[in-house]
Amino acid sequence: MDQARLKSLLEQVRDGAVNIDDAIGQMRHMPFEDLGFAKVDHHRAIRHGMPEVIFGKGKSPDHVLGIAVRVLENCPNLLATRAEPAAAELVKAKFPEAEYFPLSGVLRVWRDRAIRGKGAIAVVCAGTSDIPVAEEAHLTAEIMGNQVDVITDIGVAGIHRLMANRERPTQARVAVVCAGMEGALPSVVGGLVGCPVIAVPTSVGYGASFNGLAALLGMLNSCASNVTVVNIDNGFGGGYVASLINRL
Amino acid sequence: MDQARLKSLLEQVRDGAVNIDDAIGQMRHMPFEDLGFAKVDHHRAIRHGMPEVIFGKGKSPDHVLGIAVRVLENCPNLLATRAEPAAAELVKAKFPEAEYFPLSGVLRVWRDRAIRGKGAIAVVCAGTSDIPVAEEAHLTAEIMGNQVDVITDIGVAGIHRLMANRERPTQARVAVVCAGMEGALPSVVGGLVGCPVIAVPTSVGYGASFNGLAALLGMLNSCASNVTVVNIDNGFGGGYVASLINRL
Amino acid sequence: MDQARLKSLLEQVRDGAVNIDDAIGQMRHMPFEDLGFAKVDHHRAIRHGMPEVIFGKGKSPDHVLGIAVRVLENCPNLLATRAEPAAAELVKAKFPEAEYFPLSGVLRVWRDRAIRGKGAIAVVCAGTSDIPVAEEAHLTAEIMGNQVDVITDIGVAGIHRLMANRERPTQARVAVVCAGMEGALPSVVGGLVGCPVIAVPTSVGYGASFNGLAALLGMLNSCASNVTVVNIDNGFGGGYVASLINRL
Amino acid sequence: MDQARLKSLLEQVRDGAVNIDDAIGQMRHMPFEDLGFAKVDHHRAIRHGMPEVIFGKGKSPDHVLGIAVRVLENCPNLLATRAEPAAAELVKAKFPEAEYFPLSGVLRVWRDRAIRGKGAIAVVCAGTSDIPVAEEAHLTAEIMGNQVDVITDIGVAGIHRLMANRERPTQARVAVVCAGMEGALPSVVGGLVGCPVIAVPTSVGYGASFNGLAALLGMLNSCASNVTVVNIDNGFGGGYVASLINRL
Amino acid sequence: MDQARLKSLLEQVRDGAVNIDDAIGQMRHMPFEDLGFAKVDHHRAIRHGMPEVIFGKGKSPDHVLGIAVRVLENCPNLLATRAEPAAAELVKAKFPEAEYFPLSGVLRVWRDRAIRGKGAIAVVCAGTSDIPVAEEAHLTAEIMGNQVDVITDIGVAGIHRLMANRERPTQARVAVVCAGMEGALPSVVGGLVGCPVIAVPTSVGYGASFNGLAALLGMLNSCASNVTVVNIDNGFGGGYVASLINRL
Amino acid sequence: MDQARLKSLLEQVRDGAVNIDDAIGQMRHMPFEDLGFAKVDHHRAIRHGMPEVIFGKGKSPDHVLGIAVRVLENCPNLLATRAEPAAAELVKAKFPEAEYFPLSGVLRVWRDRAIRGKGAIAVVCAGTSDIPVAEEAHLTAEIMGNQVDVITDIGVAGIHRLMANRERPTQARVAVVCAGMEGALPSVVGGLVGCPVIAVPTSVGYGASFNGLAALLGMLNSCASNVTVVNIDNGFGGGYVASLINRL
Amino acid sequence: MDQARLKSLLEQVRDGAVNIDDAIGQMRHMPFEDLGFAKVDHHRAIRHGMPEVIFGKGKSPDHVLGIAVRVLENCPNLLATRAEPAAAELVKAKFPEAEYFPLSGVLRVWRDRAIRGKGAIAVVCAGTSDIPVAEEAHLTAEIMGNQVDVITDIGVAGIHRLMANRERPTQARVAVVCAGMEGALPSVVGGLVGCPVIAVPTSVGYGASFNGLAALLGMLNSCASNVTVVNIDNGFGGGYVASLINRL
Amino acid sequence: MDQARLKSLLEQVRDGAVNIDDAIGQMRHMPFEDLGFAKVDHHRAIRHGMPEVIFGKGKSPDHVLGIAVRVLENCPNLLATRAEPAAAELVKAKFPEAEYFPLSGVLRVWRDRAIRGKGAIAVVCAGTSDIPVAEEAHLTAEIMGNQVDVITDIGVAGIHRLMANRERPTQARVAVVCAGMEGALPSVVGGLVGCPVIAVPTSVGYGASFNGLAALLGMLNSCASNVTVVNIDNGFGGGYVASLINRL
Repeated sequence: MDQARLKSLLEQVRDGAVNIDDAIGQMRHMPFEDLGFAKVDHHRAIRHGMPEVIFGKGKSPDHVLGIAVRVLENCPNLLATRAEPAAAELVKAKFPEAEYFPLSGVLRVWRDRAIRGKGAIAVVCAGTSDIPVAEEAHLTAEIMGNQVDVITDIGVAGIHRLMANRERPTQARVAVVCAGMEGALPSVVGGLVGCPVIAVPTSVGYGASFNGLAALLGMLNSCASNVTVVNIDNGFGGGYVASLINRL
Repeated sequence: MDQARLKSLLEQVRDGAVNIDDAIGQMRHMPFEDLGFAKVDHHRAIRHGMPEVIFGKGKSPDHVLGIAVRVLENCPNLLATRAEPAAAELVKAKFPEAEYFPLSGVLRVWRDRAIRGKGAIAVVCAGTSDIPVAEEAHLTAEIMGNQVDVITDIGVAGIHRLMANRERPTQARVAVVCAGMEGALPSVVGGLVGCPVIAVPTSVGYGASFNGLAALLGMLNSCASNVTVVNIDNGFGGGYVASLINRL
Repeated sequence: MDQARLKSLLEQVRDGAVNIDDAIGQMRHMPFEDLGFAKVDHHRAIRHGMPEVIFGKGKSPDHVLGIAVRVLENCPNLLATRAEPAAAELVKAKFPEAEYFPLSGVLRVWRDRAIRGKGAIAVVCAGTSDIPVAEEAHLTAEIMGNQVDVITDIGVAGIHRLMANRERPTQARVAVVCAGMEGALPSVVGGLVGCPVIAVPTSVGYGASFNGLAALLGMLNSCASNVTVVNIDNGFGGGYVASLINRL
Repeated sequence: MDQARLKSLLEQVRDGAVNIDDAIGQMRHMPFEDLGFAKVDHHRAIRHGMPEVIFGKGKSPDHVLGIAVRVLENCPNLLATRAEPAAAELVKAKFPEAEYFPLSGVLRVWRDRAIRGKGAIAVVCAGTSDIPVAEEAHLTAEIMGNQVDVITDIGVAGIHRLMANRERPTQARVAVVCAGMEGALPSVVGGLVGCPVIAVPTSVGYGASFNGLAALLGMLNSCASNVTVVNIDNGFGGGYVASLINRL
Repeated sequence: MDQARLKSLLEQVRDGAVNIDDAIGQMRHMPFEDLGFAKVDHHRAIRHGMPEVIFGKGKSPDHVLGIAVRVLENCPNLLATRAEPAAAELVKAKFPEAEYFPLSGVLRVWRDRAIRGKGAIAVVCAGTSDIPVAEEAHLTAEIMGNQVDVITDIGVAGIHRLMANRERPTQARVAVVCAGMEGALPSVVGGLVGCPVIAVPTSVGYGASFNGLAALLGMLNSCASNVTVVNIDNGFGGGYVASLINRL
Repeated sequence: MDQARLKSLLEQVRDGAVNIDDAIGQMRHMPFEDLGFAKVDHHRAIRHGMPEVIFGKGKSPDHVLGIAVRVLENCPNLLATRAEPAAAELVKAKFPEAEYFPLSGVLRVWRDRAIRGKGAIAVVCAGTSDIPVAEEAHLTAEIMGNQVDVITDIGVAGIHRLMANRERPTQARVAVVCAGMEGALPSVVGGLVGCPVIAVPTSVGYGASFNGLAALLGMLNSCASNVTVVNIDNGFGGGYVASLINRL
Repeated sequence: MDQARLKSLLEQVRDGAVNIDDAIGQMRHMPFEDLGFAKVDHHRAIRHGMPEVIFGKGKSPDHVLGIAVRVLENCPNLLATRAEPAAAELVKAKFPEAEYFPLSGVLRVWRDRAIRGKGAIAVVCAGTSDIPVAEEAHLTAEIMGNQVDVITDIGVAGIHRLMANRERPTQARVAVVCAGMEGALPSVVGGLVGCPVIAVPTSVGYGASFNGLAALLGMLNSCASNVTVVNIDNGFGGGYVASLINRL
Repeated sequence: MDQARLKSLLEQVRDGAVNIDDAIGQMRHMPFEDLGFAKVDHHRAIRHGMPEVIFGKGKSPDHVLGIAVRVLENCPNLLATRAEPAAAELVKAKFPEAEYFPLSGVLRVWRDRAIRGKGAIAVVCAGTSDIPVAEEAHLTAEIMGNQVDVITDIGVAGIHRLMANRERPTQARVAVVCAGMEGALPSVVGGLVGCPVIAVPTSVGYGASFNGLAALLGMLNSCASNVTVVNIDNGFGGGYVASLINRL
């Protein structure tokens, strides 16, 4: 019926019975969505140089390849996270420039290497076991057009190493800090730098780490006010938000 | 700018440069929400005889009264849940027909008593301590236009009482079952009746009841397939959904 | 001894010493269950066109086939959930019309396709990973005699897609909404439609999703009053309760 | 050295150098346990017809066999719980009268079949999936010298079946009730019988059953006062305590 | 309709058309509960010398007095747990023989002091803070007709005191062991005695005791096989089940 | 003493007794921090227009006043969060320009109102009960030199209101979104806007909200990639990080 | 009776009726503890200069005074933790040298001030809110005869302050580190010092600190190997164990 | 470049261009750490006879071998925990004196067997299933230069065995106590000995042990004041801290 009402309104416009400003005023109160209007601009992400992202876990190699082909028709770059080796093989067979990073499971095609971020993003991690998560953050930030400074193996129990390297996170516009176990590193880094810190708890640990819960709670209770938190092992989320911030 | 584009389109319609069907076709792809269109029908609930509901907890008596006055201008009935006695006093001073039920904290003005439900709603509860939650469900269902059959003190450890009364829930079109402690009653009732059962866990209990968590988990794991669950102590939710179902 | 007391009463009836109304009055106080009376009507479900349901997980293929044979002797339809592929093979070998849906593990024989529901059931899910649970709900509702409208990949972070499709759940008499991760979709759908919404949390997610706990808690705390919740991944329960409601 | 000191004291007693009350006074301050005194009566269990119990999980077949040989030298009966099939094969090769129950993993040699319990023990379980735990309880109670009445598939959602069978648990001196999911059966049985009820939560269920936590919490909050609880899936514990009670 | 069918059957019995055994056979298949038959014997508890129990928490003094009056009309003894002092005052004003125990909140009238238990019940507690719970267990067991041996302040960190008193629990037929904090006492006592042990976790502790959760989990995981568990602070439950066992 | 050692070394350099490379070598092993070197720039925050922040909860009015006096000697602005009314009274008596916001407990002196942020910060909240947390975020962002656009009462169950207002968060450079109960709003807002979203879970809710845990878990599992999370009820943290981002 | 049996055996030894080796053999099977043997040295603690400790929480002032009087008869020093002000008043009225520390609730009489520890104990805390717990540790260590170096307000987010003070914990033989919120300080201190670190989580924080759980989990997962943990807010335990270690 | 700046400053000192106090003043503002100053003494551990420790879990055999080679160049001893058998094979092929302990996964090269601890360390465990964790503690303490007394299978439910062996932990300077299930052993041992006790919860158990959580909570709530706790299954941590204490 609203379809009818719209048609009638347009006829009145055509016939001069209603002037254009009044027509707009009347349309303002119509339930337009019900008419199938308001199509979304799905291409926003792509225009901003952010490739579409494939979450590879649990997808078959064929499925990953299929999406990759479709993405690369519209977008120069491709990012897949947590891809299985078999899926990576298949994609690399078709797109020889594809790179696969087995530690993190990141698979990417990185053709458009334009820098879009205004400064550097620091990606810091506590121990070698946290590297897979840090790598996911690193590669995400990189493909989104950022210079990334990766600083690894800077645990809080060896605070001297952090102090010796403290200039590096200080020079970044935003930092992503990955840590498992007690998850204390973001607080310490947050106190050293003035920029926003995205904390990524990792599931590294055992026993009372409860698969990353200890690190997650620690980060949410950080005494450094510039720390915000994403999900456990969500390196992609850390790199993504850092990239958004670095473009501002 | 889309404002401009819409105006231009309407001008073309007016001038005959675009016919109406084509105009509708073009509009289908415009981001109408951005223009402030698509106002919501906030009055849906009221038209259906469901009063606006005030969640009284933590609201000052003046605040409750203020909302009540506004609601009763548009709607014959008023329902406030978890209202403090002081708020109830204030509302009753202005609306003498208001009723207050101190066990549950329900405050209502029930002028429109039309029956809208097609059958009866059974509200069942396990022990006397569950009565406040059951009362909230009962009064919610009643003011929404339902016949309500309240069956109290039917615990699973005294299964004979339930068996002796089992005809009553069986005759309802939908049942709301409130229970604390182990929360087993919805499973037993669910097995006796064929109709949908809304289970309301209550925070009755101590120790390992963890304020209703035990009952909540029990109900979510019910072996009776016709059981769905709402939040702990959410008698209102139970009565509300039962009312929706009873109108179908 | 009660056996003796009953026999004696019947003898008095036979001999005219007690009239029939008095006999019924006396029987009202006898512990009949102890005599083995009161056999349950196990066929209620079948008469209502609901097939007996086999929970396939952990059952051997032979076991599943055995139950299937027995069910199909009494009932035209068969529904097995979470069946292993091997069990499905065995059943299909004997009942060629059996269908197997590997995503959800549903196995069914659907001979009686009579429509028993009064309207449509909408089955909505948030992401492609939620499809297995939605499929279980869909196929359950279908075999219980309902028209089902399946709407997939309608996540809350892409609210335009939901808005563009919002007419479809609105036209249903009851909706089943499946979502993992933050489990927000039932709240949004619940606000759009006026009908009852059965929310099914799924275990989709990682880290702080805690295997569906995050989605479950979100749904239990829904700010939409027409939402009730079933167990994590319980697509069957969602479809079953929706079917009961749709028959009312 | 204390051995020497004791010997010396006794020599002084023998020689009259120390009188007996002084000797007792001195002994009061000696570290007797270190001399190997006060040895525990490890044979108590055996004398009471309770075999030594092997917890088979995680033990190699050779290890299980080795313990079994040693136990059977001192005791006519053997009970191993959660034994792997390979361990069972090995024990049966050496002790042909050994029986293995693959559902529960119980392995037993049952030579001494004397009845030591004063009445029957009822072992009740809710669904077929709970049978492995019930079987562990059943076989434990049996080898400890009890008549056991096993009642299976008596779920609370089909309360008629329980009511029809309610004489059987009533005739027992003690009942073991195993249930997963919502764990409601012990409350219902507890209300029907007057005897002590040992509730055994099982890990049967999925999602919000949290591997038996829901059933455990439900049973701890039972509204039936005669219910006590053991660990999740601890059928052995249920059967063991029931046996102790049945001997009183 | 079943009413009609029963009437018709009885008429056939009266008229000799059906003989009595056949009538009983037919009745065995009739849904008797639907006729309102099968009234429960509510007086079982009272006949066994167990008074009706009032859970005093949250009940007004008037309410407690009202129930007490009614109970004492039918039963010589009265037990109220967790009664407020004001309620106790009111009951003592009317029943001068009533006793109130402020530590535990137990209020009782103990006229019938017949011994019904066959042996002694040991009530053991770990620290002085656990005494309120132990007292509830003690007084419950006493009013149910048992000799009770109360052993207090026997913590596991002072194991010598337990060893010095170990004969006392050994002489009981059943033991109730109350402990907060780490809840280890039931395991130690369970290893010393051969009888059933009812473990009562208490909420004594702070921090990571999580209001008794630590003690509860400890007891459920007891390495002593003769331990079963009731809810946190449920001294009444411990005393009640111990009494049931002691009558066997 | 190390101060002395350094002085002595420099004297030797001056006198030619030690050459420069050797001096550097010796300094490499000296504990420089202990000499007061490398002192932190504690005034960084103040220079950036961020006042020192007082966490008022649990501090006595005198204590709050004392800190306030000291802060205002060095800094034009003062921000205290969760201040008690009595502390606010005391501070306002001394600093008449101080403002107190009783809903959130924010107390501030806002003399330096320079704008330091490059764009607007949107502060969005779901329901009226979330306003105290949103107000804390709002006032924090404001005193740190930002234009703040506050959008309240935009719940996901009334998605039309959000859609109707969606331009406003879209125009911000960063958004702070506060929500209790199911905590779904940040996901929906995150999908509408392209900027970073700081999600603040609130403790609004009851039962299974577990004091904000449900909202917290929901936000950590957000399907919108631009969402990061701070602690429950941490409106200050949300406003602080948003301010940092808005200066970039 | 065993007393009699022992006496009789010794008489037989005296009389030569039993030789000494046989007597030893027979004694090996006697229940010696029951004779009152092997009495514990309850005075060990006192001899070591550790006063008996009163846990004041929940004890009435009279009760605290009564214990204090008894303790001070046998021991020069008195330590009560978590004492209420009223109890402190009462004790100070009788023992004027008693000191009360209202922040921590410690009440002590410190007459014997001998130093028993071999070095210093460092008590470090993160924020001013942690001072009550640190004070309890400090005063416990002091009264047990230790030099204590208290270092407060050394949070990980201001790592420079810690670095500037790092010599002080390094000079201690053992450190007690108290921290709430994310509980990261023990890891950082543990990395700086070589000595054992006792970590005391505090309940300081809100929201996802869950009353100290976040800090507790963080400390249990510390990446510094020299960290062990005590209960939340257990400053006494920290000071006590540190004192034991410092005497070694 | 700062290196250059420092050199230049020292040249000015040498040349008299800058006086010493001014030089110190300038140095106060230089970023000394960046020059490589204040380097940590990474060799502290090695000098103290503590080998560098490899956490073997999840490392490839090649990776473990690589680290082992590097460690053994600088240190006579090597300790790897949780090493896979394949890694052990590889290391043993190159270093024939390497020992591998498959129960615990400890791999060690133990060339320097000097005793550095002042007394014995007792390593106590409750059941045979706890031996892997106890072995890790034992071997860690041993390679760090301690005499270790291992006491196994001393569960609290068989308290006599503990009492019979109680002299052994009493003679140690520090005890490590490993226990799963209810985790009660540290409390009992703590009460028997006067020395510090390091409690190690193990993940031994099932059901409500929740992978060691029950034992962990029990130990944190120990009523013995000399108990501190490390992470679940962290035998290494227990042995490490005990070694630190034993050197004091």
